[in-house]
Amino acid sequence: MKIAIGQVNPTIGQVGANTDKIIEYIRKARDSNADLVVFPEMAIIGYPPMDLLEHRKLIKDNLEGLQKIVAASKDIYVICGYVDFDADNPPMLFNAAAFIHDGEMISRHYKTLLPTYDVFDEQRYFSPAKEQHTVMVHETSIGITICEDIWNDMSVSGDRFMENRRYSVDPVQNLLDSDVEYIVNISASPYVKGKNTMKWSRISKLAGISGVPVVYVNQVGGNDSLVFDGNSFMVNKKGEFTAMASGFEEELLVVDLESKNLLPSPLERDMEDIRKALVLGIRDYIHKCGFSQVVIGLSGGIDSALTATLAVEALGPENVMGITMPSKYSSKGSVDHSFMLGKNLGISVESVPIKKMYDLFLEELVPLMKGLPMDITEENLQARIRSNIIMAVSNKFGRLPLTTGNKSELAMGYCTIYGDMAGGLAVLSDLPKTMVYSLSRHINSEREIIPWETIEKAPSAELRENQKDEDSLPPYDLLDQVLELYIERKCSASEIIEEGFQEEMVKSILKTVDRNEYKRRQAPPGIKVTSKAFGIGRRIPIAQKYEQ
Amino acid sequence: MKIAIGQVNPTIGQVGANTDKIIEYIRKARDSNADLVVFPEMAIIGYPPMDLLEHRKLIKDNLEGLQKIVAASKDIYVICGYVDFDADNPPMLFNAAAFIHDGEMISRHYKTLLPTYDVFDEQRYFSPAKEQHTVMVHETSIGITICEDIWNDMSVSGDRFMENRRYSVDPVQNLLDSDVEYIVNISASPYVKGKNTMKWSRISKLAGISGVPVVYVNQVGGNDSLVFDGNSFMVNKKGEFTAMASGFEEELLVVDLESKNLLPSPLERDMEDIRKALVLGIRDYIHKCGFSQVVIGLSGGIDSALTATLAVEALGPENVMGITMPSKYSSKGSVDHSFMLGKNLGISVESVPIKKMYDLFLEELVPLMKGLPMDITEENLQARIRSNIIMAVSNKFGRLPLTTGNKSELAMGYCTIYGDMAGGLAVLSDLPKTMVYSLSRHINSEREIIPWETIEKAPSAELRENQKDEDSLPPYDLLDQVLELYIERKCSASEIIEEGFQEEMVKSILKTVDRNEYKRRQAPPGIKVTSKAFGIGRRIPIAQKYEQ
Repeated sequence: MKIAIGQVNPTIGQVGANTDKIIEYIRKARDSNADLVVFPEMAIIGYPPMDLLEHRKLIKDNLEGLQKIVAASKDIYVICGYVDFDADNPPMLFNAAAFIHDGEMISRHYKTLLPTYDVFDEQRYFSPAKEQHTVMVHETSIGITICEDIWNDMSVSGDRFMENRRYSVDPVQNLLDSDVEYIVNISASPYVKGKNTMKWSRISKLAGISGVPVVYVNQVGGNDSLVFDGNSFMVNKKGEFTAMASGFEEELLVVDLESKNLLPSPLERDMEDIRKALVLGIRDYIHKCGFSQVVIGLSGGIDSALTATLAVEALGPENVMGITMPSKYSSKGSVDHSFMLGKNLGISVESVPIKKMYDLFLEELVPLMKGLPMDITEENLQARIRSNIIMAVSNKFGRLPLTTGNKSELAMGYCTIYGDMAGGLAVLSDLPKTMVYSLSRHINSEREIIPWETIEKAPSAELRENQKDEDSLPPYDLLDQVLELYIERKCSASEIIEEGFQEEMVKSILKTVDRNEYKRRQAPPGIKVTSKAFGIGRRIPIAQKYEQ
Repeated sequence: MKIAIGQVNPTIGQVGANTDKIIEYIRKARDSNADLVVFPEMAIIGYPPMDLLEHRKLIKDNLEGLQKIVAASKDIYVICGYVDFDADNPPMLFNAAAFIHDGEMISRHYKTLLPTYDVFDEQRYFSPAKEQHTVMVHETSIGITICEDIWNDMSVSGDRFMENRRYSVDPVQNLLDSDVEYIVNISASPYVKGKNTMKWSRISKLAGISGVPVVYVNQVGGNDSLVFDGNSFMVNKKGEFTAMASGFEEELLVVDLESKNLLPSPLERDMEDIRKALVLGIRDYIHKCGFSQVVIGLSGGIDSALTATLAVEALGPENVMGITMPSKYSSKGSVDHSFMLGKNLGISVESVPIKKMYDLFLEELVPLMKGLPMDITEENLQARIRSNIIMAVSNKFGRLPLTTGNKSELAMGYCTIYGDMAGGLAVLSDLPKTMVYSLSRHINSEREIIPWETIEKAPSAELRENQKDEDSLPPYDLLDQVLELYIERKCSASEIIEEGFQEEMVKSILKTVDRNEYKRRQAPPGIKVTSKAFGIGRRIPIAQKYEQ
């Protein structure tokens, strides 16, 4: 039997275009003599639609889309993700898979395990399935599962697998009990560093232990802060890999369920995958928001250089514009490095010095400032003059501004709200500074794109004389470790101190992180690459006094 | 039997201070010869702690707090909200009530119905209770319910009550079946216009039909965007009101369960309640964030005038500073009205004209702007020069900036991101413009505080010559109706058009709302007063193409 994996990139809410694409893939699958074509979770609407699901029109539209898909299924089996009404329990819905054949809707299958943690809110919208049942494709019995359904840690091995949630139901075990021959999983599973390794190992093990092959079909594409990586695959009953679709791009991959062609076990390539995730995240955000061009403030530092490099990869050099906005505190190197970067990337770099504007602000603010000494106020003034320039270019030319701050800065509030934080997408906001370095070196590994001077000089905001990041922050290698323990692993101060970090530093970092929540609440969406990104998956009150 | 209602205002996460306050209230209740003292849902931690619940230290701290409360319960019964570990299902928790007497923890009661809609995310953290059981206070059998537990629409009358969620379990019915004599409900239920009317009617009806009196104890206080209004109360077995605690302030109210003293049925006073909600919301946000003073940009318009008026009520005139920042487009009236307002309120008003800075920006941007005609770019420039000034004052003097935009503007994106949207708290962001007018007139009903000229002139952003809001927006009375149908009631364009609104206007409004989601994602928290506010309770993707 031949299965076609329809690894599509839907635009959220654009039911008409998403449906058309699914129908086009069905046609191609039929042309390739596939018996069955499988599309990802919620493929008609795109994942995650969030509160758009509360609009009944969207659900109705997606059911109409589904009818068109049914009508287009002549001579082929189709499994496709959609959303159904829970008629017994309005306004609740089902996260559903349709099983379709030859112009008929054969059966509907609902998701059982509804992730409600981190970026997922499925219990906000969906009722769980109460049962699972298999379907027949020709003579073969197939069990349909939807994303989380296959990740219950109790199934098969009894391993503790899911960190977030333990469920009392195991849909996969229920299917295995009913003599299923193949399991199909349709997913919308966002990229997180290290997650594929876990996924591959887990599904391979599930197949190997149960003796039931698995076909895993994942959505691809960037949707706001989430990048779905595709990487759909198939494992045989021994848990060996027999098919692997592309990462980070659309594909229709036709595979033979009985294929004897074994692939080597896949391996994650951390930096290359993060690079691809960021590139796809930028490209889809820009295009799905209706933009084609971006503008980036270039400081001569590594963060803006890396952001510009990724933007060029995503959009082409003709669509990326850099602006350098030197002040009296900018080093000559910084301006030079921005132009060197621009040359390496083939992008235009404009220069708008801010010295005169800064001086005028200082002068006009004299009565208000009452002769108080300079402090962070004057540093922020400069950053906000720059954002005003960037936003003027954005407004005048319809270029979406990318921000360049990294996760370490955002954690510590070492950034100016309405200043360098101003923009439409925070490309690096989930990369700790140490990861910014690693990725920059990786990108430079074939040839110098980011000037090596930029990578090698000590990081500085250049908002006052001889400023260095490390005047205000602990060394990044220590800081990033403490931040990971607090933000990703939720350790207490004393637990972190027990790991060998210096007490005063740990306490100061944790307090600083919490105190700066107000800045993160107003940050643009960032692209998630770690298990805990700032943004929709991390919800912290601002007015609070948690005693860490 | 005497019951003390402990209507406390906890600070989220500040377990030590919250516990101390609870213990102080217990002492006072004992001094008043109360048999039982009741505290709100999650009183030890404060509601909603959001993802702070993922920190095990917080849960452990709250259990230690609970032990102190147990130790302080000599000669009195206590019911107190806290959070418990779900030991069978880590990392899940229970939203719990402790039943305590005379130094002993008698029993633990878990919440059954876990709201997961709008601003609520309880299934993200909590497992539901599997059963309910009553407790005995002296000879009286009492059923303990937690917030949502009492709002299941299936109970008693079979009415369709809850708009958001239908549950298959009814904890109140289970308690009634076990011959409970009184029902206690501990809540953390945020203020929403009209919600108390519904709440009062529903609980009165529940008591009247079942013949079981209800004691309802609600949290009070502002926590980020939510204002908990207190308004705890008691109804007898006929559903008549026998006690009513204050709205919008802390109180220890001692009531006799058998009281024959009937109160008139309570009535919501919309404008006065909204005023109090906003005042408490401002005060608690400012203080719980560790600030005492605010700064507000005064435009001479009604939004900033109302914001300043509420801030003065919340913080005192000595803690509120206004800044007027006239441009070449500002009318003389606007500046005069700001100073008149300042005089009426007794606050200081500083003036920083922006003309020179604006001209310099225009000059410096000439090469970048390539001679293109003036448009929204130049309007935004002015707004962002002003925010830079406001933020400089904020940084230099530690004054939290309040923003002044209303819900209609925020819906339509008729505001400048990083400009007038810049600040720590968006006081009016859930008030449609028509409600801003109503509240302003209400506030002026005794004497003129907001200059009447400000209320009566046509609203204008004054960012270009002779600009009026109605050049860019439909008339506010129409706009606000369409916005409510789309945002609060999630109607489709055609449903709204069927209500009699003009097709082109409706379609344009809906598209504009969705297109401006990116601005709202970066807005400061606002104070919720309607059933659907922008912010944490409304989660819309940015890169999406929902066909409304």
